[in-house]
Amino acid sequence: MPASSPIPVPALSIWALPGIPEVTTGDDLVALIADAAGPALADGDILVVTSKIVSKAEGRFVVADDREDAITAETVRLVAARTGPSGHTTRIVQNRLGIVSAAAGVDASNTPDGTILLLPVDPDASARAIAAGLRARLGVEVGVIVSDTLGRAWRDGQTDHAIGAGGVRVFEDLRGTTDAEGRPLTVTLPCVADELAAATDLVKGKAARLPVAVVRGRADLVGPLDLPGARSIVRALETDMFRQGADEAYADGFAAGAASRAV
Amino acid sequence: MPASSPIPVPALSIWALPGIPEVTTGDDLVALIADAAGPALADGDILVVTSKIVSKAEGRFVVADDREDAITAETVRLVAARTGPSGHTTRIVQNRLGIVSAAAGVDASNTPDGTILLLPVDPDASARAIAAGLRARLGVEVGVIVSDTLGRAWRDGQTDHAIGAGGVRVFEDLRGTTDAEGRPLTVTLPCVADELAAATDLVKGKAARLPVAVVRGRADLVGPLDLPGARSIVRALETDMFRQGADEAYADGFAAGAASRAV
Repeated sequence: MPASSPIPVPALSIWALPGIPEVTTGDDLVALIADAAGPALADGDILVVTSKIVSKAEGRFVVADDREDAITAETVRLVAARTGPSGHTTRIVQNRLGIVSAAAGVDASNTPDGTILLLPVDPDASARAIAAGLRARLGVEVGVIVSDTLGRAWRDGQTDHAIGAGGVRVFEDLRGTTDAEGRPLTVTLPCVADELAAATDLVKGKAARLPVAVVRGRADLVGPLDLPGARSIVRALETDMFRQGADEAYADGFAAGAASRAV
Repeated sequence: MPASSPIPVPALSIWALPGIPEVTTGDDLVALIADAAGPALADGDILVVTSKIVSKAEGRFVVADDREDAITAETVRLVAARTGPSGHTTRIVQNRLGIVSAAAGVDASNTPDGTILLLPVDPDASARAIAAGLRARLGVEVGVIVSDTLGRAWRDGQTDHAIGAGGVRVFEDLRGTTDAEGRPLTVTLPCVADELAAATDLVKGKAARLPVAVVRGRADLVGPLDLPGARSIVRALETDMFRQGADEAYADGFAAGAASRAV
């Protein structure tokens, strides 16, 4: 916000933390982040930590020549698959965390040659542990989000999303409040955790080693460490209209239709 | 970014513009935004404008007792439908802009009683016109995004997305660049326009009358007015694995399977 701004308006500052070194198995992320953030953190700040460094600290490397095998191992449910002109098959799957994404979050970029990196074991627990550690060490009430880059249905490209959250609200629940005309905002449930993750991707970049960013200005979203985690963002299967790809659902329906006639 | 930050790091400032009055048909958004932003805008700033005020300025009100009829009129293609316990049917549709969303973007909140609001006629053209107007009036090279609140497959809640863009890159194309280990980032295509829209929702809010926010710090994304618009974010139908809901695709498959046996 420009210093000349005449009256207070809602504003955010977002900045990447410089000086986070290459993370390896067993590293103490709380110490690395605290050292990088220095005394700059304040009550109500929200840190967004790229899941890659959480995975690395947890030693989630797998020596694998075949990324496809690792994806299969991480997959709980195949949602859709599509083979492109190159012959490569992209699999959209739901992983053990409930997250629907391409390749189950298995990552082969920014990892040592011959290794791939799995997602953190429990990103909500990781986020809570980092938040708890930073609160204890620095004496400031911060929230932590663990982010991952995900593709989307219907829209090209990717945006960063929250896959873990500790001490920060993932939804801003406006249900029960009213609009400017006094009518209820019945279905509005902004996923602020995903919006925070997306916002920080704009300063973290993909190729640079800037895996942590800080958002200041939404202290109202920071709270106790036992707030619901990012797992609560996952839509329940029974209400998910896109729980299966169109081709897969059609094929299942076709088989069932053919069988119904055969009987 | 705290003033004490020792070295320059990537940083954003995001603030909402106070003082935008209630917008009505025929209002000059360039003048309203320029008056609200005052001399604070600088080269490289990106303004994110809530589609609602663009629609209102364009007079996209429809007097309608039946919102469902308006949704039907805006629908190009039904993607999925689901009837909830209350008996209300939610329709996920693709509208004439290519956007897949619940209710075709037809909006009955923050509008006068008895009216509903349709999306802008051409949000990319609106964004370009606002950017061109602000550039001419204020002498600063700004970009403009028109945003809307959209639900997502697989994840609960909503986030703001870009449905129009003028003078700002919608994708940051990293394909062809390399990661920190020197390997190509082959499939990485961050949708920065959606990330900018999501980021500004964190300061605009839903219930308040703060329909415009400014992002400072990504001047590299601002460019000529003829850059591709947000229409280019829409995934092509032939590569969209979720072009139809699972239940709908299953039903179509079942019918085809049964017919194949009947012949």
